[in-house]
Amino acid sequence: MTTRNLSLSDARALAVACLEKAGFDAANAAAIADRMIEAERDRCQSHGLFRLAWCVAGATSGRANPEAKPKLSTLAPAVVRVDGDAGYAPLAQQMAHDALVEATRKNGIAAAGITNMFHIAAMWPEVEALARDGLVAMAWTASYPYVAPAGGIKPLFGTNPMGFAWPRPGRDPLVFDQASSAMARGEIQIAARDGHSVPETAGIGPDGAATTDPNVVLEGAQLGFGGYKGAALAMMVELLAGPLIGEFLSFEAAEDDAGKGGPPKGGELIIAMDPARFGDPENALAHGEKLFAEVLSQEGTRLPGERRFKARAETPEQGIEVAEKLYQEALALSQ
Amino acid sequence: MTTRNLSLSDARALAVACLEKAGFDAANAAAIADRMIEAERDRCQSHGLFRLAWCVAGATSGRANPEAKPKLSTLAPAVVRVDGDAGYAPLAQQMAHDALVEATRKNGIAAAGITNMFHIAAMWPEVEALARDGLVAMAWTASYPYVAPAGGIKPLFGTNPMGFAWPRPGRDPLVFDQASSAMARGEIQIAARDGHSVPETAGIGPDGAATTDPNVVLEGAQLGFGGYKGAALAMMVELLAGPLIGEFLSFEAAEDDAGKGGPPKGGELIIAMDPARFGDPENALAHGEKLFAEVLSQEGTRLPGERRFKARAETPEQGIEVAEKLYQEALALSQ
Repeated sequence: MTTRNLSLSDARALAVACLEKAGFDAANAAAIADRMIEAERDRCQSHGLFRLAWCVAGATSGRANPEAKPKLSTLAPAVVRVDGDAGYAPLAQQMAHDALVEATRKNGIAAAGITNMFHIAAMWPEVEALARDGLVAMAWTASYPYVAPAGGIKPLFGTNPMGFAWPRPGRDPLVFDQASSAMARGEIQIAARDGHSVPETAGIGPDGAATTDPNVVLEGAQLGFGGYKGAALAMMVELLAGPLIGEFLSFEAAEDDAGKGGPPKGGELIIAMDPARFGDPENALAHGEKLFAEVLSQEGTRLPGERRFKARAETPEQGIEVAEKLYQEALALSQ
Repeated sequence: MTTRNLSLSDARALAVACLEKAGFDAANAAAIADRMIEAERDRCQSHGLFRLAWCVAGATSGRANPEAKPKLSTLAPAVVRVDGDAGYAPLAQQMAHDALVEATRKNGIAAAGITNMFHIAAMWPEVEALARDGLVAMAWTASYPYVAPAGGIKPLFGTNPMGFAWPRPGRDPLVFDQASSAMARGEIQIAARDGHSVPETAGIGPDGAATTDPNVVLEGAQLGFGGYKGAALAMMVELLAGPLIGEFLSFEAAEDDAGKGGPPKGGELIIAMDPARFGDPENALAHGEKLFAEVLSQEGTRLPGERRFKARAETPEQGIEVAEKLYQEALALSQ
């Protein structure tokens, strides 16, 4: 595959140009581009420029509001809500962050339900930001129906990721972000694009039969990780990021899209906890370090998130490798 | 295997007799026995009478307080703590339930950290009880080091289950309770006892090699479900049910036990949310039913928890089948 090296700032400028060309106002274009470039910076390409054409399609189809102004409300002492004004997620997520930090410090635990927005991407940025503010954070979101329920063969649940972060004083937080499905949708799409096979655990064909062909999985259904347990988590995420907060289930997001294209409309639930308000205020984080030391004392282990932080240290100097085809598509969208 | 049919009330009386013989006071013996018989009633044998000798060992070894009187405190507006007074979990869990319901209704979301207790068993009773009070509930607990971290081969994490429940008006709640490991510890122990093999995904031998022999897994390490993702969840649970609430990590629980025997000392984190205080107070639960209808419209599916509720309807009439060897052991312990 021919690739092109781009600096992070050039990649960001390209993303902003595409988004502004598609009608996004400056605040929204900047926030969306920042999220994409954060992903590229961490070499998490499936949430980077790869998503640009999809994001643009969501606005040009008339579904997403490219000039969204999110609105904050308080639903209970420890529950905040941000209405995304039918725009893309990043501006709404920024607004939710500050309100959630305040409610969590006050109450010990708090939740943010973010609704009426499009394209909730990777979950690690939200939870990482909360951990950098000293909080333990969990986040969930649904998407489109991609994953079959346990025992079934038709897609119903989203790939429904969960993000988790734990603060580490003086260090990058512990952060993971993992789909309830065996593989992330973007990874299967990239395997299809690049002609690679996928593990048999990733999904099934439309007839329920095993396959390693990513194209057949994309026509059939993905499977939960570890089988029925991942499917149970995917169902839980549907409930938390859908009905609980007043948003779509994944199959309802697909009905709303109705083939118009672009990312799903949906919601996100974030829960944050303040270790200073739980049972061991002085020592909780130092205690967590004992666990990490034990993990790393075993050969072959690493902590979740380490690869992203390593990439993050490298890409500002090294730039990022972007597929030439993707670059040309973005260039065309920007003009 | 020779079995004996026992009525639920006879099984309970046997459990109470064993526990009182071991020195538990009436309140603790009744609460512990109730939990075991709830498990037997739901045909969840690995948390039933199978655990009786282990529970007795924890008291006769002098580790657990058989006359524990749990103490409640409020750590923040939405965080309650119950100190289990070094006793067994059920009395402390009952105390946490009422306080958590109150804090959740008031704040929209709340957490209970239950600490200084032994033998946190299945998690479905706690979350199911909260869902029957109209709340969405999640619970986590660690145990002893049984599961290897991703990439490692030595046991470090507990099997670290998560319980989840969602209220269904007029029906049994949706409830699941699943280990972060590919198999529950009790299932592997029962496979070893009965001479069955286990799937290769269940664990590895002490040298890290694949095996289907449950005895070799018990000497080596269990694995997370779905591989590294289950291991990441197990690590998260360590942090939530350990350092966050001021309790042991699994490896610290093992050090505390120091070979004395009996169940681990540890903690439990429960988070509850009130759907009436989130983004869709009137409609959230009816909306959840739409998801369940879609799941059940697919052939071969069922909702998590259904088997337990079916068993629960049958065992009051049919009684339970208890292995004769287990019955004789219990009888000996009771006299």
